[in-house]
Amino acid sequence: MAGNSFGTLFRVTTWGESHGPAIGCVIDGTPPRIPLSEADIQHWVDRRRPGQSRFTTQRREADSVKILSGVFEGQTTGTPISLIIENEDARSKDYDDNKDKFRPGHADYTYWTKYGIRDHRGGGRSSARETATRVAAGAIARKILGPAVTIRGALIQIGPHRIDRARWDWAAVEDNPFWCPDRQTAQQWEGFLDGVRKAGSSAGAVIEVMASGVPAGLGAPIYGKLDADIAASLMGINAVKGVEIGAGFGAAALSGEENADEMRMDRGKVAFLSNQAGGILGGISTGQDIVARFAVKPTSSILTPRRTVTIAGAETEIATKGRHDPCVGIRAVPIGEAMIACVLADHLLRHRAQCG
Amino acid sequence: MAGNSFGTLFRVTTWGESHGPAIGCVIDGTPPRIPLSEADIQHWVDRRRPGQSRFTTQRREADSVKILSGVFEGQTTGTPISLIIENEDARSKDYDDNKDKFRPGHADYTYWTKYGIRDHRGGGRSSARETATRVAAGAIARKILGPAVTIRGALIQIGPHRIDRARWDWAAVEDNPFWCPDRQTAQQWEGFLDGVRKAGSSAGAVIEVMASGVPAGLGAPIYGKLDADIAASLMGINAVKGVEIGAGFGAAALSGEENADEMRMDRGKVAFLSNQAGGILGGISTGQDIVARFAVKPTSSILTPRRTVTIAGAETEIATKGRHDPCVGIRAVPIGEAMIACVLADHLLRHRAQCG
Amino acid sequence: MAGNSFGTLFRVTTWGESHGPAIGCVIDGTPPRIPLSEADIQHWVDRRRPGQSRFTTQRREADSVKILSGVFEGQTTGTPISLIIENEDARSKDYDDNKDKFRPGHADYTYWTKYGIRDHRGGGRSSARETATRVAAGAIARKILGPAVTIRGALIQIGPHRIDRARWDWAAVEDNPFWCPDRQTAQQWEGFLDGVRKAGSSAGAVIEVMASGVPAGLGAPIYGKLDADIAASLMGINAVKGVEIGAGFGAAALSGEENADEMRMDRGKVAFLSNQAGGILGGISTGQDIVARFAVKPTSSILTPRRTVTIAGAETEIATKGRHDPCVGIRAVPIGEAMIACVLADHLLRHRAQCG
Amino acid sequence: MAGNSFGTLFRVTTWGESHGPAIGCVIDGTPPRIPLSEADIQHWVDRRRPGQSRFTTQRREADSVKILSGVFEGQTTGTPISLIIENEDARSKDYDDNKDKFRPGHADYTYWTKYGIRDHRGGGRSSARETATRVAAGAIARKILGPAVTIRGALIQIGPHRIDRARWDWAAVEDNPFWCPDRQTAQQWEGFLDGVRKAGSSAGAVIEVMASGVPAGLGAPIYGKLDADIAASLMGINAVKGVEIGAGFGAAALSGEENADEMRMDRGKVAFLSNQAGGILGGISTGQDIVARFAVKPTSSILTPRRTVTIAGAETEIATKGRHDPCVGIRAVPIGEAMIACVLADHLLRHRAQCG
Repeated sequence: MAGNSFGTLFRVTTWGESHGPAIGCVIDGTPPRIPLSEADIQHWVDRRRPGQSRFTTQRREADSVKILSGVFEGQTTGTPISLIIENEDARSKDYDDNKDKFRPGHADYTYWTKYGIRDHRGGGRSSARETATRVAAGAIARKILGPAVTIRGALIQIGPHRIDRARWDWAAVEDNPFWCPDRQTAQQWEGFLDGVRKAGSSAGAVIEVMASGVPAGLGAPIYGKLDADIAASLMGINAVKGVEIGAGFGAAALSGEENADEMRMDRGKVAFLSNQAGGILGGISTGQDIVARFAVKPTSSILTPRRTVTIAGAETEIATKGRHDPCVGIRAVPIGEAMIACVLADHLLRHRAQCG
Repeated sequence: MAGNSFGTLFRVTTWGESHGPAIGCVIDGTPPRIPLSEADIQHWVDRRRPGQSRFTTQRREADSVKILSGVFEGQTTGTPISLIIENEDARSKDYDDNKDKFRPGHADYTYWTKYGIRDHRGGGRSSARETATRVAAGAIARKILGPAVTIRGALIQIGPHRIDRARWDWAAVEDNPFWCPDRQTAQQWEGFLDGVRKAGSSAGAVIEVMASGVPAGLGAPIYGKLDADIAASLMGINAVKGVEIGAGFGAAALSGEENADEMRMDRGKVAFLSNQAGGILGGISTGQDIVARFAVKPTSSILTPRRTVTIAGAETEIATKGRHDPCVGIRAVPIGEAMIACVLADHLLRHRAQCG
Repeated sequence: MAGNSFGTLFRVTTWGESHGPAIGCVIDGTPPRIPLSEADIQHWVDRRRPGQSRFTTQRREADSVKILSGVFEGQTTGTPISLIIENEDARSKDYDDNKDKFRPGHADYTYWTKYGIRDHRGGGRSSARETATRVAAGAIARKILGPAVTIRGALIQIGPHRIDRARWDWAAVEDNPFWCPDRQTAQQWEGFLDGVRKAGSSAGAVIEVMASGVPAGLGAPIYGKLDADIAASLMGINAVKGVEIGAGFGAAALSGEENADEMRMDRGKVAFLSNQAGGILGGISTGQDIVARFAVKPTSSILTPRRTVTIAGAETEIATKGRHDPCVGIRAVPIGEAMIACVLADHLLRHRAQCG
Repeated sequence: MAGNSFGTLFRVTTWGESHGPAIGCVIDGTPPRIPLSEADIQHWVDRRRPGQSRFTTQRREADSVKILSGVFEGQTTGTPISLIIENEDARSKDYDDNKDKFRPGHADYTYWTKYGIRDHRGGGRSSARETATRVAAGAIARKILGPAVTIRGALIQIGPHRIDRARWDWAAVEDNPFWCPDRQTAQQWEGFLDGVRKAGSSAGAVIEVMASGVPAGLGAPIYGKLDADIAASLMGINAVKGVEIGAGFGAAALSGEENADEMRMDRGKVAFLSNQAGGILGGISTGQDIVARFAVKPTSSILTPRRTVTIAGAETEIATKGRHDPCVGIRAVPIGEAMIACVLADHLLRHRAQCG
């Protein structure tokens, strides 16, 4: 199956290149009679929009989402929802100098090797611009999940600098340009990232996403496990190199006693005494918070010249100008939230189908 | 789509419970005219077989694989290959005492919540016994990939104890009961794990799998990326809590300069000067070694009593007897290799379909 | 996607060759807690079993179905159900003479051309023997649909001889070896088919299947229409060359006035005054009886020598001995019922997922 | 899986309503480096365009296709191709009078029952307007198949009036407003259909599509058979009630001797002496012409008042004004061709994947 769709019952197909006329997606499988407006979607897309601080790309895109189908008189009809976002500030000329060079760390070489052709302008299809449509899809997924489910993300590390989890404050996340839940660390990051930016360099990051209110029972073992689907959805975000659930890689160092979340009863319901599992056991949600983290590598587009080769096989150097995020991890926060929203909406429908 | 199949063109469907009459799988999409015998498959399945050292479960299973279809006169015919492994040493009575209790860290509670019924004997469908069929499927995947592709795994951490990568020796991997590439660390692990075992406790682990000889160009962006499919395939192995590719979580702390793998020409071919990417850029293989790591939590079945609840909602304690691996991560090595073999075989066929 | 699975949420994967050790299927997506025994399945498989009259093949197969997984203490668990039927009376030697010749009307030539290898014994994978597993799957589909849905098939034409629909009596269907709803025609067929059989020839047939009690609303437009899925499921049965729904090909000759089924209210519910639509409009069930018909070509294995060629490209003749049905359409009745049961069960789950 | 996509490797997802701002589709899986322009697609879409004779709807739509992605410098890039067609002449007011009534023979009642909401304007999603995007997709499918494959359709029956096959002339097809291969019959149809149109009635039709030059070996048995996929693709076209391949329903009346296509050698290649099979055996193409036919019911929108009910459950009558085709079968010819082109392109890629 071709690779531009994800989800089984809540199914998203995206299309578009960074510097083409538009990008968009088709969302199939949405239940009918859900109230939905363009503003509902725009709210979330705006959170990912570029140019909102000096720490993200200066490309100016309104990122206005238009609904072309699937909504009638303010409600979903159950038919496919087509969304479109026009590309406005595509300065393709910025890329002309380097169109025959493979930018290290980018997909230039692999697209060329695979397809024998590529739209080099702004990275074409491999540009993170495509993720705007994921965030749009995530907005609809949230509608399906309903108000009882809350999905929130935060940046917990930039470069080598981690937050202090003891200072975690969800309210802080909306207060700084980093989605950082630790105000003190956010201030330190500002200085650090200004230095990175001025040096023409870039930094990586780690994002944590938490989904609360997810009912127990979602997930389709053995090969549609909730954590496996989350892992794929996050690893598939541009520049992501690692994914973990709950205790994650730290689980390897725990003892069996420390790792197994004990259970008690609390007002007639099962209550877990810890959440090393990150809300998923055997691929199925436990009803606890689902906790996922993912690592984003530093932006590959940097000003420092790097050694590379051309399409013709000549050795050369490259320094990437264009307009870039010094830390793409920042804008990955709303993307990570959106991907998890989509996975959960899909599994809600899948669970209803089999066990409903 | 129901959750017991994986792969798109090389498609594996598994079935069976830990203590049912048998387990098995159906493998669809194998190219025709590939020589294949039961012995070819048995070779790999034997590597995962229990009871081969004191560090794995003492359950005695021959794990004999039988081919029921899809092979004629020693060659694949292109029709589905049905494999079956009979369950021989299923001591279901070991589980009777605890059949109404939810074992912490296990899938007991979530299966019960999802389905309202579960085969409690030996964990039923959620038992790692199911992974024997994945290893069998992986053997066929290796045949499709051919001898130019080598997929090898190693254990690089048990509990808090990591190997010294400077001592990495692939030859060592076959020499110790841990698939450890560092002989010195392997000896230390022996003492550590004996202690864990005698204490009735358990330990986690980290596994690294490397695939060499993979051609550049495999992977289906945007939502069938090679790394995303690897992430799902590894996260879907029992007890896995984290997955990373190349520099992984460490990439977050690198600078853009350090992270981007530079390129030169070497005898007419593109050569990368480093492999932070782990062999994948933009979701497509670069031709370098593909490097993936995954973390396995400690075995949840431990002798120390833990607090839990019963199906009826009563608080109780549980100590899991049965026969268990003190570190399930050990036997995860051949499973991780098999999953990556299956993902690569699938993408080889997918690439051939689109790009011929 | 490889071709040995069908259905989206109720998903059946079949495997096995006519003269291999066994045939079987894996059924994924069955809702949990449905009572299910081997006898429940055997009941339906027996209706398709060969050797029950002189008008079907004399191959002696008990066709005993064994459940290998997915059922615990008499109930489905929601995990995959693996079914196996052993091949007992496979006389492969009957086929040795013709193993290098392509039997006209059979799949010999196309399998050979596609795969470059084929299991020639009894037709291998292309044998109608595979359909026993479909009937087994259909038995489980009927359980999902529940007792309110009735799916019944009947033979309405053998060779050029059609039934008289005015004499249609469902009770008659179980009374004769043809599943014929018209007793008088059944008697005529007996003479006709004896003649065909003695001449070593064969005859085609038309089957009608009716599903009653299907709720309105099943079907996934635009490309998962209920009628499109039924068409695929019936056309995919061995030897089928045509499928129609409701008025079918006859609809072409109707006027718009005759064709459009008018509606009135009847005790508070919508009642249609006719059923030209065959119970499906816009790809969605109307709540009326679903009526489908399919045409089966004459058995290709005949005693009269026919011109053909060998694998090596030599011209030759062939007369097919073996044990064959003079009219394969007869045993297609339970198969057609089973396919429609599977399609309906799948759409019931799909509908519940989206609109549930 | 939601129902608005079809194909496995050549995968088409369509969206849009009859009276929304636009309709469109996303085509995923196209091989890279195929020359493709908007004009290439427009050529085929124009053949389906309304208003080209008095025998089709008078709705005036330019049906201009725009490519929004997936093509770079005149070639496909292997990324998804997004196509959009704006709706220009949508007179939604024509439908206001009847918005609460279920039009007999239309999908009004079933959409309402399934979704509880529907875009009534011009039939919304269930309008045949959606098929313009299929024809656009078919144009790309033809490019994949290449010039050696020719797919041509013809109308062979309108109402009760069939062509005389002895007069079949492919050149005639482009000469008359019916795509009729028999000039003499085309003239008779003109009178017949004028009568139907003036009476405010409608007529059904039968279409035949032939694909020549298709290589042997395409088709994925058992459940992705080429004929089963063709059957689904044709039955899924609006108003289709029957599909047949080769001898079709006529095969039921043939003897085994008549039905089995004999084989001889011709200049070193296998040559069939007849084509009752319609180019497909065992679900795999034989290399002969693929011949498929499908029946289209009369247009359900007629001027004669018919009995029906309202959303509120009141009995009423309806006469459909709007602008309608007296025989929707005419415009089904290019749609049928397109669907078969898409199925063949998909199977070409599938075959290459497994056997390539």
